[in-house]
Amino acid sequence: MSTDDTTTTEASTESNCGAKTDGGTATAEASTDTSTGSACGAPSSGSESSSSSCGASSTDEEEEVGATVDDFDADPGQLVAVGLGPGQPEGMTSRATAALSAVDHIVGYTTYVELLPDEITDDAEDIYDTPMCGEVSRTEEAIDRALAGNDVAIIGSGDPNVYALAGLALEIIESKGATASALDFEVVPGVPAAQSCAARVGAPLVNDTVSVSLSDHLTDMPTIESRLHAVAKEGFTISIYNPWSRKRRENFEKCCEILLEHRAPDTPVGIVHGAGREDEQTEIVELGELEALGETDLIDMTTTVLVGNEETYVWDGRMVTPRGYETKYDY
Amino acid sequence: MSTDDTTTTEASTESNCGAKTDGGTATAEASTDTSTGSACGAPSSGSESSSSSCGASSTDEEEEVGATVDDFDADPGQLVAVGLGPGQPEGMTSRATAALSAVDHIVGYTTYVELLPDEITDDAEDIYDTPMCGEVSRTEEAIDRALAGNDVAIIGSGDPNVYALAGLALEIIESKGATASALDFEVVPGVPAAQSCAARVGAPLVNDTVSVSLSDHLTDMPTIESRLHAVAKEGFTISIYNPWSRKRRENFEKCCEILLEHRAPDTPVGIVHGAGREDEQTEIVELGELEALGETDLIDMTTTVLVGNEETYVWDGRMVTPRGYETKYDY
Repeated sequence: MSTDDTTTTEASTESNCGAKTDGGTATAEASTDTSTGSACGAPSSGSESSSSSCGASSTDEEEEVGATVDDFDADPGQLVAVGLGPGQPEGMTSRATAALSAVDHIVGYTTYVELLPDEITDDAEDIYDTPMCGEVSRTEEAIDRALAGNDVAIIGSGDPNVYALAGLALEIIESKGATASALDFEVVPGVPAAQSCAARVGAPLVNDTVSVSLSDHLTDMPTIESRLHAVAKEGFTISIYNPWSRKRRENFEKCCEILLEHRAPDTPVGIVHGAGREDEQTEIVELGELEALGETDLIDMTTTVLVGNEETYVWDGRMVTPRGYETKYDY
Repeated sequence: MSTDDTTTTEASTESNCGAKTDGGTATAEASTDTSTGSACGAPSSGSESSSSSCGASSTDEEEEVGATVDDFDADPGQLVAVGLGPGQPEGMTSRATAALSAVDHIVGYTTYVELLPDEITDDAEDIYDTPMCGEVSRTEEAIDRALAGNDVAIIGSGDPNVYALAGLALEIIESKGATASALDFEVVPGVPAAQSCAARVGAPLVNDTVSVSLSDHLTDMPTIESRLHAVAKEGFTISIYNPWSRKRRENFEKCCEILLEHRAPDTPVGIVHGAGREDEQTEIVELGELEALGETDLIDMTTTVLVGNEETYVWDGRMVTPRGYETKYDY
């Protein structure tokens, strides 16, 4: 899971290019202009209209950032996008651990880098981490380092296909005139937040299910609303990513209203805050209570909300969405 | 992922009860009648009208199977539902490995048990495996063994919340008059098939996404069709589980027709057959070709089909669904 917006806007620029002074084979000739002070790894296109602060700089000027494949004359290394799963090292797959042990450089959001086991970070030749909001520049940095001849892993929590960087990496590789094949680009899957949070509340998602992000940073709010109406009508269980931030509390309120148009107020809802982190908190509530909880610490950017369907019930502190076996078997 | 129907109907009944002759503390007094020869772990309720052979016996008589909590006088052990992730041991999380190493008994579908690393199967006190179709009896067996005082893991590929046994386990625990708390019931998440298959074709699912099973064994076909219409209209990427079996090829045909009502024939579709198995095969095709492929070996019960949205494209042999960064950043 990539939580793709925030109210903090710092960005570290300790290194911003594939040219490494300590990387023997790297001979990148381009360097990225980091003098604009853009807070989120890329300047605004000037068309930013959402309430999110990500991607918005104080200037309207467009700027092409980044080197292209022609700026590198090394044989490219490998780029691998690795999903760490839920928060803690024990949630990583053996394949993810092996992939991270095999690369030269690890690139990621600072919080996730800090979650890596010491044996992995100690072994890495270099680690490049930036705070939240630097997805684009961080991904470009990873690609530049691979084009410069290093084997590079770009990491994220959850799975690289779930609101995360696998697609962005491919888009940036293409924009640089390189190919995924040349970088032997690979995706190592991880346990998504929906499933790791579902496990914490029992069995809320065992039937047809959907995930929707409430961030309108990259998808507009009318689209999000339309999707919520469509799936709430059809008995899908719903995992809500990026449910709330101070700058777009109205998205969460609107979501709660839409869900209540289609589902009863006593529909069970699982809330997992900070899964795998020190401040983890899990609650099962009713849909009718959800909107008010948006004003508490329980629901923020690190929270995943799991909305049951018409058949979901709570038993012994667990949410259960029947798969339908009870219609065919006696037990 | 649980592939919940099949055309094979054998069921092993080498053991069918929590009473273990070699389990010191176990003193179950009940045993399950296994003399009916029911093929799928439970007799038919007589109302089976789908084309699936699962759950259908040749008799219409109802039968209560299974012991209740009162039949056991041992202190219960722990029951843990463990998701193995995609096929091979390298796809397991460290937590799953640790959980399986900690239990006394492992219960699962034979194919998944065979995928476990030797160090886990060698260490287990007992392993109970049955062929496909025995989900209900297998889950009941796991619960009975836990009620009889053993620490038990019930395993499945993918994640226990994705068309799998976490919910069924809770339902059966309740039906036996036991509680999840008494068994310290826990779910250990795994990488779902949608994400492990997505990784194989690139980045097809990075935005809002949905999973739909085409098996009408436990969900009726009008519901499945209505869900497909709803999500195909709304730009969700769609992971299709249980896409095809000989007995319900018309479900797959209908699904292809519905998708083509809402999406262009050249919409990219990723097909992953037998992920993590010896006969694994991955292809990226167009939606317009999909129905005809239902008649080939590429699409069967072990296949996951990933349907792109209106923005998904194919580049360098990979499917890419843009997350939307390109609308905000230059790269």
